[in-house]
Amino acid sequence: MKTHTVQQAVRYAETDRMQVVHHSTFLLWFEIGRTGLLAEIGFPYHALELEGTLFPVVEYTCRITGRTDYGDTVEIETRVSSVRSRSVAFSYTVKKMGMLIATGATTHVAIDRDKKPKRLPDPLLEALRENLEISSGS
Amino acid sequence: MKTHTVQQAVRYAETDRMQVVHHSTFLLWFEIGRTGLLAEIGFPYHALELEGTLFPVVEYTCRITGRTDYGDTVEIETRVSSVRSRSVAFSYTVKKMGMLIATGATTHVAIDRDKKPKRLPDPLLEALRENLEISSGS
Amino acid sequence: MKTHTVQQAVRYAETDRMQVVHHSTFLLWFEIGRTGLLAEIGFPYHALELEGTLFPVVEYTCRITGRTDYGDTVEIETRVSSVRSRSVAFSYTVKKMGMLIATGATTHVAIDRDKKPKRLPDPLLEALRENLEISSGS
Amino acid sequence: MKTHTVQQAVRYAETDRMQVVHHSTFLLWFEIGRTGLLAEIGFPYHALELEGTLFPVVEYTCRITGRTDYGDTVEIETRVSSVRSRSVAFSYTVKKMGMLIATGATTHVAIDRDKKPKRLPDPLLEALRENLEISSGS
Repeated sequence: MKTHTVQQAVRYAETDRMQVVHHSTFLLWFEIGRTGLLAEIGFPYHALELEGTLFPVVEYTCRITGRTDYGDTVEIETRVSSVRSRSVAFSYTVKKMGMLIATGATTHVAIDRDKKPKRLPDPLLEALRENLEISSGS
Repeated sequence: MKTHTVQQAVRYAETDRMQVVHHSTFLLWFEIGRTGLLAEIGFPYHALELEGTLFPVVEYTCRITGRTDYGDTVEIETRVSSVRSRSVAFSYTVKKMGMLIATGATTHVAIDRDKKPKRLPDPLLEALRENLEISSGS
Repeated sequence: MKTHTVQQAVRYAETDRMQVVHHSTFLLWFEIGRTGLLAEIGFPYHALELEGTLFPVVEYTCRITGRTDYGDTVEIETRVSSVRSRSVAFSYTVKKMGMLIATGATTHVAIDRDKKPKRLPDPLLEALRENLEISSGS
Repeated sequence: MKTHTVQQAVRYAETDRMQVVHHSTFLLWFEIGRTGLLAEIGFPYHALELEGTLFPVVEYTCRITGRTDYGDTVEIETRVSSVRSRSVAFSYTVKKMGMLIATGATTHVAIDRDKKPKRLPDPLLEALRENLEISSGS
């Protein structure tokens, strides 16, 4: 199992008039985490797209338990939480100075350039399975 | 029960290189629907904030079942799905030419300007309850 | 000469921690105005792209003279300010309750799907010229 | 004179259906460059705001001469181009693998928390002048 970790300084433009980060920003951070993990296991997402495998998000959830604002740096942890032949799911935590401020998850299906569902390429499937959050049992 | 309905033309800036709307855009549309519903029941959100009641999002989910792109107009339906003295939840559907393309939900807690939890003002509580998606009854 | 006018409610997500609209938002409003004008003169931009004419922004300017925040509705006026065989420019004003709060301009070149410069299609050129802000002189 | 340099990986969400970065993204990068420069000369912008000096953007320009897309890393260079007692201007270049892809500029006025114009704090004025792009002459 692999956890990908990346830090991001909160952008001014990511805040809103409540003087915290707008809740949609977590999705952008998850995206940075997820594409960082894919790069780390040898499959940069821009190369996957070039080769004809796209991963649109079909479901997402986020639970925000702390606040973060401009001036903070957050740490995004990403894990592979589920792998199937045609879909993959990631889970995320966002921390500020070690304190959890959000958790989330995204599910993706694989499609080709014509938006038709497809199998994940085998080498990618294998790499994702090797990095699954919870090994498949005993 | 009240359903608030609003139409939005997809903005070019809301698309991404996959030539569909970026998945985070649904949250912006939910926000438009939710604040539209609040205005419709007599509590414009900007007035609520002015009077010291803020509604940060503490949880959200979205399930995307169809695609939408620049050139489309979507219809956002918003409903009040849960009301408590200190929190409220909304549910959403997004349709394109009558076809469902996404569903979602957000949960909010009420805080004051110092970010301390507070009760929803009674008149607002009442108005929200009158518009609850499913009546609380037998 | 044609002025295209469109109204937009300020989105909560468009504000920042300064409790005004983030300055980049004006570009998104200009985009709404510009594509609205193109639609009004018979050339919806999504159709232009489908037919192989893309209009990337190669230059923009914006001067912000007033403030706007969530709760406001702004009025965006768009005019065609320059037309050449391979480029077009638009000018914009943003008003809040009749008061000017920003002016701006964008310049665009025409390219094809392979990102190669091209001439604007003749019917579009003609329509743009008919709507030029300042008639080509006595 | 000081040039502040920072690198940014292009975010997927920053692209649009033209499969390049949306033109408004350059403003977000300028913001990262500008606040990075302020931090580097000892005046982190979030601390300035805390102490009651805000720097809203009152004018901006951007000229885009190259393309950049998801998968690229860009380098943002920021310089102080003008300093007055109540306003400051910055200039920017964005490069991709050493090649210039955009230039830009922003002008800011200093205001207090009540949005009233104010003088820049003297120590900040001094630090900005020491880092002016072009020394004030022979």
